[in-house]
Amino acid sequence: MMITVLRLNHRIDRDKRITTHVGLVARAFGADEMKVDTKDDSIARSLRSVTDLFGGSFSVKTGVKAKHIVKNWDGKVIHLTMYGQRLKEVIPSIDTSQPLLIIIGSEKVPAWCYEEADLNVAGGNQPHSEVASLSLFLDRITSGSWEQKDFQGKLTIHPSKRGKVVESTDNEANHI
Amino acid sequence: MMITVLRLNHRIDRDKRITTHVGLVARAFGADEMKVDTKDDSIARSLRSVTDLFGGSFSVKTGVKAKHIVKNWDGKVIHLTMYGQRLKEVIPSIDTSQPLLIIIGSEKVPAWCYEEADLNVAGGNQPHSEVASLSLFLDRITSGSWEQKDFQGKLTIHPSKRGKVVESTDNEANHI
Repeated sequence: MMITVLRLNHRIDRDKRITTHVGLVARAFGADEMKVDTKDDSIARSLRSVTDLFGGSFSVKTGVKAKHIVKNWDGKVIHLTMYGQRLKEVIPSIDTSQPLLIIIGSEKVPAWCYEEADLNVAGGNQPHSEVASLSLFLDRITSGSWEQKDFQGKLTIHPSKRGKVVESTDNEANHI
Repeated sequence: MMITVLRLNHRIDRDKRITTHVGLVARAFGADEMKVDTKDDSIARSLRSVTDLFGGSFSVKTGVKAKHIVKNWDGKVIHLTMYGQRLKEVIPSIDTSQPLLIIIGSEKVPAWCYEEADLNVAGGNQPHSEVASLSLFLDRITSGSWEQKDFQGKLTIHPSKRGKVVESTDNEANHI
């Protein structure tokens, strides 16, 4: 499965933390890359530093032409919106052999998103969070397999009843 | 099931949007209330206005004594942290007949949280987002029942293939 997350309407000051969370969730739950419409080197750097420490091959590109990417996508385009169809009704119909482009809007999303998307999907028809919608969508589409994934990072966190168990294979990485 | 979310280390300027997302997710995925350690009337107001429009009985209290609440909780205390045990191993063991207190930290969490919690649970042992962890935990603990819940709000969003289908039972509420 090949999954790209496209973050729309990113505003550098206002959305810094939310877009970072979107990127971290994309990486942790099995997406391969994130593209952000607005050029933002700081977001790209912080996501790359997490991938460098914690592993995997997640990539980030900012300053992309969102509409061009959507219109020319060779695969399925899925727009996450609270106005969309129910997750559990839509997930079984998605052909995961094709590359998936998942559009995550910020507050206002242009009308063309709803039109160009193959599917408009809601992680609940209530106002909440694009971070939550993305995590739920990826959880369902990967059937929860993210929980077993070995990222082979310099740092690996091992599940623990109490406290923090972190394995490091890199002496430079023990400052976390 | 009675679920309270306790947001720790909320910093008014820096965490405004993330804590709002935590609250919106708590409400949308079946929690009954959110308590925030730092007094923040603005967060409380914005969450109340969503509940007023979209329904349900979610309540918000800010400026609470977090440690006192945790130490005196009559039920189970669950701390969501990337260092915790795996979600799928822990969920079946949680007794949902007791009130659940779910602790959501911000960046640094004091050591007493790990000690006082009955369970330290990870929505993935990778760095990502407390918003995503909370949504996944609530999704699993409610067995996805949030997707069918009728909040009986002044505004109801109906699932739709394209565009926005919003039903309003209140003439004052049609400005959304």
